[in-house]
Formats: sequence, C-alpha cells, structure tokens
Amino acid sequence: MTTPTLDLSIELLKRPSVTPKDENCQNIIADRLANSGFVSEFMYFGEGDTERNAQVKNLWARRGNASPLVCFLGHTDVVPTGDEKNWTYPPFEPTIKDGYLYARGASDMKTAIACFTVACENFVKKHPNHNGSIALLLTSDEEGPSVNGTVKVVETLENRQEKIDYCLVGEPSGTNVLGDVIKNGRRGSLGGVLTVTGKQGHVAYPHLAVNPIHYAMPALNDLVAQTWDNGNDYFPPTTMQISNLNAGTGANNVIPQTLTAEFNFRFSTETNETELKAKTYAIFDKYFTDGKASFTIDWKLSGKPFLTEQGKLVNACQTAIKNVMNIDTELSTSGGTSDGRFVAPTGAQVVELGVLNATIHQVNECVAVDDLEKLTAIYEQILENLLT
Amino acid sequence: MTTPTLDLSIELLKRPSVTPKDENCQNIIADRLANSGFVSEFMYFGEGDTERNAQVKNLWARRGNASPLVCFLGHTDVVPTGDEKNWTYPPFEPTIKDGYLYARGASDMKTAIACFTVACENFVKKHPNHNGSIALLLTSDEEGPSVNGTVKVVETLENRQEKIDYCLVGEPSGTNVLGDVIKNGRRGSLGGVLTVTGKQGHVAYPHLAVNPIHYAMPALNDLVAQTWDNGNDYFPPTTMQISNLNAGTGANNVIPQTLTAEFNFRFSTETNETELKAKTYAIFDKYFTDGKASFTIDWKLSGKPFLTEQGKLVNACQTAIKNVMNIDTELSTSGGTSDGRFVAPTGAQVVELGVLNATIHQVNECVAVDDLEKLTAIYEQILENLLT
Ligand SMILES: [Zn+2]
Ligand SMILES: [Zn+2]
Repeated sequence: MTTPTLDLSIELLKRPSVTPKDENCQNIIADRLANSGFVSEFMYFGEGDTERNAQVKNLWARRGNASPLVCFLGHTDVVPTGDEKNWTYPPFEPTIKDGYLYARGASDMKTAIACFTVACENFVKKHPNHNGSIALLLTSDEEGPSVNGTVKVVETLENRQEKIDYCLVGEPSGTNVLGDVIKNGRRGSLGGVLTVTGKQGHVAYPHLAVNPIHYAMPALNDLVAQTWDNGNDYFPPTTMQISNLNAGTGANNVIPQTLTAEFNFRFSTETNETELKAKTYAIFDKYFTDGKASFTIDWKLSGKPFLTEQGKLVNACQTAIKNVMNIDTELSTSGGTSDGRFVAPTGAQVVELGVLNATIHQVNECVAVDDLEKLTAIYEQILENLLT
Repeated sequence: MTTPTLDLSIELLKRPSVTPKDENCQNIIADRLANSGFVSEFMYFGEGDTERNAQVKNLWARRGNASPLVCFLGHTDVVPTGDEKNWTYPPFEPTIKDGYLYARGASDMKTAIACFTVACENFVKKHPNHNGSIALLLTSDEEGPSVNGTVKVVETLENRQEKIDYCLVGEPSGTNVLGDVIKNGRRGSLGGVLTVTGKQGHVAYPHLAVNPIHYAMPALNDLVAQTWDNGNDYFPPTTMQISNLNAGTGANNVIPQTLTAEFNFRFSTETNETELKAKTYAIFDKYFTDGKASFTIDWKLSGKPFLTEQGKLVNACQTAIKNVMNIDTELSTSGGTSDGRFVAPTGAQVVELGVLNATIHQVNECVAVDDLEKLTAIYEQILENLLT
C-alpha cells in the first residue's frame, strides 16, 4: 500500500545525490511545500556563492514569521555506494522487499526528509493558523567537508536575526525500535596530528641517530593510558583514539627521522578543548626533556560538545514517541557528530530523531516501510506539542 | 703520477656496475691474474644458474692448491648513484681533484679490488713459489639481495672441500686514517615484522572496536626499553630498532584493524636468535592476555654474529699496518653486515680491511689517491706474513 511518505521517499531515493550533489531533491521539497504556504529560498555557497558555480546548494523553507520557530534539519546528499555489485538491489533503484525499502539514503536520511515534509503538510492542513513558524533547512553537504552547508546557512540566518528555537535533526537515531533513542547532544570532536622529529640514521648505528619511534613511545604509552574525565549524566567519558600512526622510510635498515600520529578526542561537557590540549602537551613535555627529539601538534576542532537538557523540545519528542510507539525514549549523546553542532551554538534546543541507524553507510542500506508512517506521525505530533 | 693500482681502479670505476651488474669488471681481474698464474672460474647463479640467464656473476680465481688458502673477498657491484646532478663529477667518470679520486665505488669497494689484485701480482713476482694458495672471490651481488653471490660460491667451495683459511674482506673499514680500524667480526642481524590484529571501528565508538595501536602500545613500550645484553670485549651491547611502524586507514575517524612494526636486532655473541625471539615473544605474551587482539611475528635472520679472535690473521694485518702506516690498529665489530658472514661459518678467520668508509653510499664518494699505494703495500705484506 502506498502512502505520500513512501512515494516521496522513493522519489528522493531514485536520485544519485552523492555529496555534494543534490540532484534537485531540494526542488521537489520546495515545490511541494509551496502548496502548504512555505516560502523557499535557495542558498548557494562555495566558489563565489553563485548558483552556477556553487559547490553546495541549500534550501531554507519557512512558513510564518512568528516565534517560536521549529526547524527540521536534514541533508539530501548521501555517501558513495562503493561497488554496486555488492548491493542486492541497485542502490539508486529503491526496492521494497519483505517490508523493507532498500536504497542508498534509505536510513541516512532521505526517508526522514520525506517524513517531516509530509508531517508539515498534514499539520498545516489541520492547523493553518498554528502558533510560531515552521522551517526546513536542507543541505547537500553533510557527508562531505561540511563547510558550505548548514554552517553557512546558520551564519546567514544569524546575520539577519532569524532565530531557530527548536531544531529537530532527522538523522537516524533508533537502535532497535523506532524512537527508542533520541540524541539530545553530541560530544565534541577534537583532532590532533602529532609530529615527532628525531634524527635519521642506520639501524646498525643507533647511537648516531635518534629514533622518533623509540623516543615517543613512553609518551604515547602514557597518552593512551589516560583517563580524561568520567563523563556525566548526559555524556559518556571522554575518549581519545589514535587513528593513524606512521613512521619509517620503508627500508628495514633505516632509522626514520619522523613519526606522525593522528588522534581524535570525542569529549564530554566535563572538559573542553583548552583543557585537553593542555593535558596532551603536559604528557609530551614530561618526556621530551633532553632536546634530542622535538614534537609539534596541529589541532583541529571539528565540533564543540552540545547538550539540550530535559525541556520543551525533549519533552515534545518523548511525548510524541510515547503516543505513537508506546515506548519510553532513551536520551543519548553518543555517536558521531551531526550538523546539529552548527545550530546548537545559536541557543536553539536541538534533538536528533530519525529512523533506525543499523545500516547507515553500508551496502543494502534499508528502512522498515512501516516506520515511515510512524515517524511521520511522530513528527506531526511534535509540531502539535510545540505549536498548538 | 700514475700507478698500476690507480690505473686499475679507474678502469673498474668507469663501469656502471650497479647491483647486480658486473659490467665485465671480473673479466678484467681474471685476465690480469692469468698472467700471475691464477686459474679463474666464473660461477653464475640465479634463474637456472646459466651464464645467459643468471642474475649474478661471480669470480673464483685461485693460484696454487696447497694450504693454507688466503682469500681476498670483494664485490664489483655498487649502489645506485641517486640523481647524478647532485654529484660534482659524473659518478662513472672517475675524476682526480686535490688528491682525491671521485666516483661511485671509489670507497666501496672497487679500489680495494684494484689494491689486492696488484698486491697479488707484486707478491707472486717476488715469491713465485710461496707457501699455500691465494684466491680472489668477487661477486656482483653484495649491495643487493645477496642470495646469488658469495653465499652460493662458498656453498660450492664447501661442496668440493675447498677450504678458505684466511679471508681478507676489502670493505672500507678505516675511520680517520688508512688502517686505523679493522673489523674482526660482525654483529648478527635478526629482523622481525610484528603484525597486531585488533578490530576495526569508528573513533566515536571505541568500545565496539579494539584499537591495535592502543592495545600494542604497552608491549611496544616495554620492547624499546629492554636491555638485551651488555656486550663483551669484542662486541657492543645488542641493540633493537623499530624501523617502520604503521597503522591506520588514512581516514581520521576510523580505528584501524592492524598495526605492523618492522624491527631489527644487531646482536652480539652474548646472545643468539633463539634467545632474542623468546624474549620478544615473552614481552608480547605478557600483554596479549585477554584475547581481544592477537599478534604474529615473521622473523628473518640475515646473519649470525661472527668473531675472529686475536690470532694469525689479525696479527698479520696489525703487523702489516704497523709497518706501512706506523699506527696501531683498533679491532672493531661495529657496523653493518658484510659478505664475511658467509665465509666465517666455514671456520675461516675473517678480517675486513679496506680504505676509509666516510663517503660510502653517498654522493661524491671518494678515496685519497695516496691511500691506494699504501693499501696495496699492506695487502702485499699480509701475504708475506701468511705465506712466506
Ligand atoms: Zn546523515
Ligand atoms: Zn661494500
């Protein structure tokens, strides 16, 4: 049995909108929502910010001018499919089989876009004179560098004093059952690239060289053994992982000159980037005392942690999920970053709620067809809870 | 002023005999020595061991059948030049400037070949009925994989019960003055490639992964902190160096599945490969206890340590150097391996004595022209000391 949400999902999933392509997904949404009184504005960023040259196309569609403003946040881009031969069904030919809809983007996150679009239509039909305003912010740059997408749209809105009060991010958040988990915050992400410089030489003459591998080892060993904090009610303890560690010329008789280690902190609100940097430097300073080797660290802060505590938006989500699914929702701040990190600093309450995330970024990405109607109903109820 | 040694050196240095090429250097030597009563035999190894297909050409030239047998060991191949633009003079156009002869192989070790060839000629002219025998063993596979060179010739000699008593390796051994250092042994060389296998994952979910970098770090830290032995009168302490350490997919958000570390022991006669392997396994076994990650080590023994204690050959060398240079010689076992490692296990006394080694394998490799006559004289005196 077909439904508006399923139809719209399939229409979006047919389009191979691999980052940063949108393939006119945003136009489909804008055209539909025009019928519900939304005013659409496309924002182009990158390469002169013109429609012709821009790297990224974004949509800002808003209905009404009053406060509070509820914004649905989503991305029309998807990650690459990898070798299509590994897919049971072609990734851009949405296929329903045994109650599941298969396609790249089925979970992350074109179906959620379809759900909240239809939810908006349904809600507006019932409540043409609702309180406040509703907006959709869609980007095609979430899975990529994320520099010409949500962050730039939010900047534009802030510059013209357009303020989002409640932001509902459609990222897949469920674990086992639709609605079982919502994300009310995210850990911060701080990356670092350590470069240790020793002195090259021959393995037969180690006394004439300074092996950066040997020199750095006690410090690295100390680094991986650290406890950074113990987390709090909302956040798990901060973690640090070395993702890449490289030293060596390839030759087995040469002591290399440099070692590089790329590492990443996922950090709670119990600490911050300043403290993490200071602790890291303190560890290396403790071992790099004789001047024989030196180190530098290049830092990159990908996102500060953010948290939406129990309040209007979390309550609205929990109540809606309880009504539709009859389950209690778990609040979580685990997982990777999302574009919610760009909206939270404006003071908005931000919650992520979407379909199950079991198959994201994998072959045979899929979603339970039944969940589409349920998620549409949940989104509609959230609008009821916040704007009526 | 030209001399037979200088002429022969230049003739050899003109030939671009980069490993495994010989460029007929061996034929030049064989032809000359035929006039001094040497019988030459070419030995071809690799790819069927035929002259046409062989990868490596070796020369075994011998004068006399009696014992003892004094053998000069050398290689006609040279390491690559690198970018020739970095050389002041073209590397295969031997050039004399300010008392130095510049060319690839000037130090390592075509000049030593010229020196001992001329020394043999001179000695034979003076002592046509010398005691014992003299041989030259030349390969063109010393700087390369060293599998079809000296090792195979020695194997052939052993199979036909042809025994080398004293082996004089012409590798550059001097540090500041010709003859100041001779090598009367070499450390062993044992290589290992460690592979640690954890479980790949996302840096945001370290509890679902096993980071082989973090897991292996305490063991690696223990490994680099080890004292393996304290050496002895002839050998410095055994050293271990990690030359290559690699882990990571390149992506900064992925916890890699594997880590590899390539390491190398240079070991004294106070230990052996069995003990070193056992100690290494014991270190890793101590940390790899919970089964979450596993490790393997692939070992490669490149050479056992060997030692020629004070005795006939060392004395002959020291006396000759004292006579020609008026200096005392230091015995050393430091440095890399040489083809002497293939001869020592047959029971031969083995000493390395050649020109200064300051410029080997570098651009503008060179040798002092004066040292050529002196080294020729030293080699001739050694023959006097051993065979008259
Ligand atoms: Zn997503
Ligand atoms: Zn050499």
